[in-house]
Amino acid sequence: MRIALAQINYHVGNLRYNVDRMLAAIKTAQEERADLVVFSELSVCGYPARDLLLSATFVDRCMEAVDQVASGCEGIAAVVGGPSPNKHAGGKGLYNTAFFLYDGRVQHMYHKGLLPTYDVFNEYRYFEPAKAFETIAFGGERVALTVCEDIWNLDAQGLYPVNPPDLLNKGKPTLMINISASPFAWDHVPERMHILAENARKYGLPLFSANLVGGQTDLLFDGASAVFNPAGRLVDRLPSFAEDLRVYELGIVSGSEGIPVPAMPEKEDKWRIIKGALVMGVRDYFRKTGLKKALVGLSGGIDSAVTMAVAVEALGKDNVWAVLLPGPFSSDHSVSDAVAMAENTGVRHDTISINDTVRSLENSLATHFRGTQPGIAEENLQARARAVILMGLSNKFGHLLLNTSNKSEAAVGYGTLYGDMCGGLAVLGDVYKTDVYGMARVINLRQETIPLSTITKAPSAELKPGQKDTDSLPEYALLDAVLYRFLEKHMDARSIISEGYDEALVRKVIRMVCYSEHKRRQSPPILRISPKCLGIGREMPLEADYGTLL
Amino acid sequence: MRIALAQINYHVGNLRYNVDRMLAAIKTAQEERADLVVFSELSVCGYPARDLLLSATFVDRCMEAVDQVASGCEGIAAVVGGPSPNKHAGGKGLYNTAFFLYDGRVQHMYHKGLLPTYDVFNEYRYFEPAKAFETIAFGGERVALTVCEDIWNLDAQGLYPVNPPDLLNKGKPTLMINISASPFAWDHVPERMHILAENARKYGLPLFSANLVGGQTDLLFDGASAVFNPAGRLVDRLPSFAEDLRVYELGIVSGSEGIPVPAMPEKEDKWRIIKGALVMGVRDYFRKTGLKKALVGLSGGIDSAVTMAVAVEALGKDNVWAVLLPGPFSSDHSVSDAVAMAENTGVRHDTISINDTVRSLENSLATHFRGTQPGIAEENLQARARAVILMGLSNKFGHLLLNTSNKSEAAVGYGTLYGDMCGGLAVLGDVYKTDVYGMARVINLRQETIPLSTITKAPSAELKPGQKDTDSLPEYALLDAVLYRFLEKHMDARSIISEGYDEALVRKVIRMVCYSEHKRRQSPPILRISPKCLGIGREMPLEADYGTLL
Repeated sequence: MRIALAQINYHVGNLRYNVDRMLAAIKTAQEERADLVVFSELSVCGYPARDLLLSATFVDRCMEAVDQVASGCEGIAAVVGGPSPNKHAGGKGLYNTAFFLYDGRVQHMYHKGLLPTYDVFNEYRYFEPAKAFETIAFGGERVALTVCEDIWNLDAQGLYPVNPPDLLNKGKPTLMINISASPFAWDHVPERMHILAENARKYGLPLFSANLVGGQTDLLFDGASAVFNPAGRLVDRLPSFAEDLRVYELGIVSGSEGIPVPAMPEKEDKWRIIKGALVMGVRDYFRKTGLKKALVGLSGGIDSAVTMAVAVEALGKDNVWAVLLPGPFSSDHSVSDAVAMAENTGVRHDTISINDTVRSLENSLATHFRGTQPGIAEENLQARARAVILMGLSNKFGHLLLNTSNKSEAAVGYGTLYGDMCGGLAVLGDVYKTDVYGMARVINLRQETIPLSTITKAPSAELKPGQKDTDSLPEYALLDAVLYRFLEKHMDARSIISEGYDEALVRKVIRMVCYSEHKRRQSPPILRISPKCLGIGREMPLEADYGTLL
Repeated sequence: MRIALAQINYHVGNLRYNVDRMLAAIKTAQEERADLVVFSELSVCGYPARDLLLSATFVDRCMEAVDQVASGCEGIAAVVGGPSPNKHAGGKGLYNTAFFLYDGRVQHMYHKGLLPTYDVFNEYRYFEPAKAFETIAFGGERVALTVCEDIWNLDAQGLYPVNPPDLLNKGKPTLMINISASPFAWDHVPERMHILAENARKYGLPLFSANLVGGQTDLLFDGASAVFNPAGRLVDRLPSFAEDLRVYELGIVSGSEGIPVPAMPEKEDKWRIIKGALVMGVRDYFRKTGLKKALVGLSGGIDSAVTMAVAVEALGKDNVWAVLLPGPFSSDHSVSDAVAMAENTGVRHDTISINDTVRSLENSLATHFRGTQPGIAEENLQARARAVILMGLSNKFGHLLLNTSNKSEAAVGYGTLYGDMCGGLAVLGDVYKTDVYGMARVINLRQETIPLSTITKAPSAELKPGQKDTDSLPEYALLDAVLYRFLEKHMDARSIISEGYDEALVRKVIRMVCYSEHKRRQSPPILRISPKCLGIGREMPLEADYGTLL
């Protein structure tokens, strides 16, 4: 038997587009003499379709779309994902279904049993979990078909009291197929490979996994669909961040040697992978929303430089516009570094001073501010004047403003709401400042795109004379170490301190994170590249007392 | 037996505060010779505690807090809500538990069986549903204790395949108790009363319901805890939007006549109830975040007038600051209406012209805007100049800026991101424009607080000469009718059109709603007063194709 894995970048809600892509893939697979082509989870509607799934019309159209794909399945079978109505009395109205298609129609429906409802997932909002699991006979094989999470609870000791593959195994399968929409995080890919390998090994079966690829606003899917031999060794892996279709001879897969699953990426590999994910995220957000051009406020600092480099790679230099907005405390090197960056990448750049606007704002507020100490309020006027000018250009010319905030500053609330927190998409919002430097290193590997002085100078918001980030924040290496433990490792103050970090510093950082939740609530969508993003997947109350965490 | 219902406004995460309030209530109940005092769902931690529940430390502290409440239960019993660890292998780590306390310790733990995971709820993110349900013997009675949603699936045909009260009924209960955190929506209270009554009637038991009261950022809880006789008639109901504690003699409840559950509020009742909810929401957000003072940009229009009236009722006139920000196209009546409104309420008011700032912005952009038609970009400069000045005052003096957008304009994206969409809390963001007028009528019942001309003039953003909202939007009565059907009734274009609405208009409105999702993603938290808010409880993709809805 020949099995094709189709790794496709679907468009949520765009059923016509998704069906056409699948029909084309079926044709290609057929030309390559495949017997079965496997698409990813919820492929007809795109993932995540969110509350579109609450529309009965939408679900009807999805079922019709499945039938349209089925009509292309003559002499070939396909596994397609989509929602299907739950016809039993009681329970959620939908199942998350893998449709097994051949002879022009739906032959089997396998419903997902484990519905992830944590972090970025909320599948139980829409779907009823299946309770029964049966293998499917096809072409002399017995297929254990599963949907994503179904294979992630191997010992039934985790988040769910059942393990679907154990139940499927009673049907004596000869082959495992998993269709998934498993999101990217820089350290998640090896983990996913490990789970797939463990399933193949535990049941002694070849395993074919088709994963979604593409950016869906903040949620990124890397693809990396993979094939494992019955010993749990990796036989092949499709690319990350790109579409592909590959056909495998089942016998060859079962007999092949394979290699161990890849190790956790480190340093440059990690930064290269993050950059790849962000480039895809930017490109797909523009493509799927029908936008063409991006606007970046280029400050001469590292964040806007890396944001622009990502945007140029994603959209092409002719689709990126850099605007420099020097203000009363901008240094000469900021302007020259920004100009150098723009020239290195070849993007159009313009300079608009904010000085007059800031002066008008200060004059308007002078009566009220008289007698107060200059502080945050005055500094924010500058950040907000920049935002108004950038948004003016955005509104006039239809360019989407990219937000340049990094995860470290977003975490501690070191940014101006309606100022530098503006933008349609936060490119670096899930990247710690120390990793932004790492990305800059990777970007500069072949040539100095980002000026060296942008990388070497001390970070500053330049909102008052001689200001440095370290006036308000710890050194970023230290800040990021504490943030990583608090956010990603879910450690509380006491356990972080017990690792040797300064008590006052740890408590100060955690307090800053907790009490800046209200700012992040209004931030743009953040491209997610870590296991714990400050945007999607983190749901903290705004009005709480956070004392128990300190 | 004497049973007390304690309706308390808890503070999420503030365990010390919550425990102290419960201990005080136990003391009061004891003085009134109660045998049992009933608190609402998740009372020790507050509801919703969201991802605070993912912290093991937080759950440990909650369990300690339950023990502290138990230590106050000598000679009296209490039902208290809190999270508790799931000690079985497999499944989510927590239960949503009702603790039955007496003799100084936890005697029974009842775990919630039905976990709402839809609209504003995502309880399966944290909790494992209970599978077994047992009654509790206490003081000669057998108590069927349930948590909120457990009683909402009476025929097991709804969202869940089980009905916990049916299972509890096998234990031959003599009394039902339901502890809840059932959020407010203007039409939800009669529905909740109906479900409670149906449970009492179906099982022929007296029913005591203790519901949460208070605002938790966007989510509002009205309280309205209630007591029903075994015929399902309402015996008593605690106030809406206020704390209370009442003690009932079980025998008297069972024997009392009762009244039917209240009907759906209409017109003035509806608007009065909405105003009550919003006043509580504003007051609680300020109190729980430790803020004192509010800032309102007063335009002379109806939205900012009603927002200010709500703020004054919530915080007192000395804690509200009105700022008028006339611009190049502000009419004389706007300024005079705003001044009249400020004077009628007695709040401090100041006027700051935006003209110079707008001129500076226009000059800065002149080179780039040259040769283009003036349009949205220029209009937005004015809205954003206002926002920057308001935020300057907010940052300088620590006043929270209240957002004044209404639901109708938020729905169709008729507002400026980082302009009039600014603010820390959206007071009217879930109130349709036509209901904003209704609220104005209620506010003006005793005296003309809101100037009549504010109510009678045609709504205008005043961002260009002679502009009216109806230049871009249908009449609000029509717009709201379509929005209500699309958002609240989940009707698609075809079914709305089949009710007689103009086809082009319906499709235009739905398209505006779908393709302005990206603006609302960055809006402040919206106080929720309807069954379908545009903030919490609505989760739409940003990058989707919405064609199936049109």
